[in-house]
Amino acid sequence: MSGQTLTEKILSRASGKPVTQGDVIEASVDIVAFHDLTGYHVIEVMEKAGMVKVFDQGKIVVAFDHLAPPPDIRSAEIQGNIRKFVKDVKIPNFHDINVGILHELLVEKYAQPGQVIVAADSHTTTSGALGAFAQGMGASDIAAAAITGKTWLVAPSSFKVTLEGKPAKWISGKDVALKLLGDFKAEYFNGKSIEVEVKDPSSFPMDYRATASNMGIEMNADALMFIPDSETVRYVKQMRGYEPKLVTPDNDAKYEDNYTIELDKMEPLVAAPYSVDNVKTVSEVQGTPVDQVYIGSCTNGRLSDFEVAAKIMKGKKVKSRCIAIPASYEMFKEALEKGYINTLFEAGCIITYGTCGPCLGGHFGVAGPGEVIVSTSSRNFRGRMGSNESKTYLSGPAVAAASAVEGKISSPGDVM
Amino acid sequence: MSGQTLTEKILSRASGKPVTQGDVIEASVDIVAFHDLTGYHVIEVMEKAGMVKVFDQGKIVVAFDHLAPPPDIRSAEIQGNIRKFVKDVKIPNFHDINVGILHELLVEKYAQPGQVIVAADSHTTTSGALGAFAQGMGASDIAAAAITGKTWLVAPSSFKVTLEGKPAKWISGKDVALKLLGDFKAEYFNGKSIEVEVKDPSSFPMDYRATASNMGIEMNADALMFIPDSETVRYVKQMRGYEPKLVTPDNDAKYEDNYTIELDKMEPLVAAPYSVDNVKTVSEVQGTPVDQVYIGSCTNGRLSDFEVAAKIMKGKKVKSRCIAIPASYEMFKEALEKGYINTLFEAGCIITYGTCGPCLGGHFGVAGPGEVIVSTSSRNFRGRMGSNESKTYLSGPAVAAASAVEGKISSPGDVM
Repeated sequence: MSGQTLTEKILSRASGKPVTQGDVIEASVDIVAFHDLTGYHVIEVMEKAGMVKVFDQGKIVVAFDHLAPPPDIRSAEIQGNIRKFVKDVKIPNFHDINVGILHELLVEKYAQPGQVIVAADSHTTTSGALGAFAQGMGASDIAAAAITGKTWLVAPSSFKVTLEGKPAKWISGKDVALKLLGDFKAEYFNGKSIEVEVKDPSSFPMDYRATASNMGIEMNADALMFIPDSETVRYVKQMRGYEPKLVTPDNDAKYEDNYTIELDKMEPLVAAPYSVDNVKTVSEVQGTPVDQVYIGSCTNGRLSDFEVAAKIMKGKKVKSRCIAIPASYEMFKEALEKGYINTLFEAGCIITYGTCGPCLGGHFGVAGPGEVIVSTSSRNFRGRMGSNESKTYLSGPAVAAASAVEGKISSPGDVM
Repeated sequence: MSGQTLTEKILSRASGKPVTQGDVIEASVDIVAFHDLTGYHVIEVMEKAGMVKVFDQGKIVVAFDHLAPPPDIRSAEIQGNIRKFVKDVKIPNFHDINVGILHELLVEKYAQPGQVIVAADSHTTTSGALGAFAQGMGASDIAAAAITGKTWLVAPSSFKVTLEGKPAKWISGKDVALKLLGDFKAEYFNGKSIEVEVKDPSSFPMDYRATASNMGIEMNADALMFIPDSETVRYVKQMRGYEPKLVTPDNDAKYEDNYTIELDKMEPLVAAPYSVDNVKTVSEVQGTPVDQVYIGSCTNGRLSDFEVAAKIMKGKKVKSRCIAIPASYEMFKEALEKGYINTLFEAGCIITYGTCGPCLGGHFGVAGPGEVIVSTSSRNFRGRMGSNESKTYLSGPAVAAASAVEGKISSPGDVM
């Protein structure tokens, strides 16, 4: 018998028996999470089942992000009901409208290598950045997991991606995600867990990993995990003050397939309307007039995103509207301390923090008919960010910032 | 024949003949303005009349503030249509979603002593702070004024208010507005123009004046003007780099009535639900639990508001949710430079800039059922800030900040 992949190792521990691909397992969960938009349904399921309780208060995480601060009475009412639930059930890890986007908070504060994390939102894969098997589920599944501490899964096969070299200039996590989407298309990773090994850990930091893992669900992967390494240790120590216990695959683990990306040979990519896998190089779409740029979301709302945006916008004024939203209080704080907020504001960006807002066409910058949006968020299907007659190009922060400065889709190299 | 009040002087100049109370006049207008929410109707009226044109492009001011950035597709679409109008008609003074609230921009950049200003929003009275006769009108009237450069008015009688002494601690423009509302009730000033003389001009600066003028419409006044003085000169020089020409009433002007407020004897006031004239001292409602505090709006979103809020919040954490929104890019910029944004953020406030958002229950912090709000905005009728089952207490920035820190309605003196 060969050694275990990271996926097999995590799911074996969580189910209490050796797991191989295709097994239907019952796994113990380490974290169960939901936000305001799905929390409403999670609690509704609990109420209908007559079981408004949780298996372990300390393992539940709740954050208000999708409609925070509330753009209408119904959102405010839903948040009020969830506040009452959180108080009644005594959940300590509750984050109100002033803290941040759930997936970012899981990365910053909670997720650990080797954990099983389930949350009522598809982008739960984000926590794979720390080497957790993290998966989004529907509200009923999350209600069941919150009550029982268990969930069922079909064990996926493991697909190995190796990142080699140092990223070329302006390349970050988004470009890697888009490369996988362009090369394999969105359906390819169905029933697969992607495990990413970074040959030079410090060259592909946690922010980049979170972006890539976040987009795992866009690839239809069950999970997209970075194999924990020295960067994982650095990040957890820096953000939380303790050293994480690493869980890694065995050396002789057997993968369904392998794929290598040479980071130093990449060029900035975008996903053109209306699909995440309609991937093009920036040069192919360069010059397209842009109405609005959005830098933020659980995909790209982290410090390094605002660092590169500030570098590009420094001393310039945006020609298209630009909305910049650090994903959490912590990210805003650091961006403020480092002067990135000032730079983006001086360039003319509208700024707030900790809301999903524009990504889902929810509020705070919904796309109007005929508008072209460049967004660092994760989805560009028709109508995702607002009007069905709008068009969204997805990119990393460098292309987004350059496009805002130029008022048209631009390569960062052209404005620097 | 006695001399002229400021109102009579302005309207005589604007109509080209001596005006006395009760005259129906046709007045030339110096500025015509509208925002995204009313602009839609203004342009619709122009289109229906087949006259999509303006009398003088330089005298039109358009700003996006009510639903900026847009919280839904319809708002985005309306803004898109107004952008097209502004481009077609060639209006230079157009301010997109990243600039500020219309009334604040009029005060910062446009309004001058002696002008007649009309805008499609009731709080147009704000520009009275600079000694302009400024009045809100419906969309049809504004469309007509924009096309012809003229409007009709019934000349109001003039009521004189004199502010004596220096404001007591924590007293600012809002308390003066609430004092007038409490003493006279909301209907009293119907058909009247209020002219305020400040005995010690520097002790009641432009920010305070803008707040008081803003609330003129809450008193049902046709206008609430501060008689231009050395503070008017200081403000215009500082903000725009030139010295304004002052227009003042004649020494022997005859007023319908006079009222004196002794600023040094005031204590902080609030308007309790559900009316602006349900005025109480803070001590009368102290201790009421508060869910959310809003510091901002065209009423109280200026530098001095954030200065006092920062002073109170410094080193503390808010116990209720707090949304802080400087009224314009310029106000955010100055608040950022002076560290007020950092202080409010560190205290836990959600921050953005230049949107009306929560004031009208529009977006970015709508009140939910059962919630109690303390707000520096201008209105607290049932449902104004969201749910019909919410309650809003209006206050100045000091009471709002203290209440956020304590999580209950509090006097600023109690937390300092």
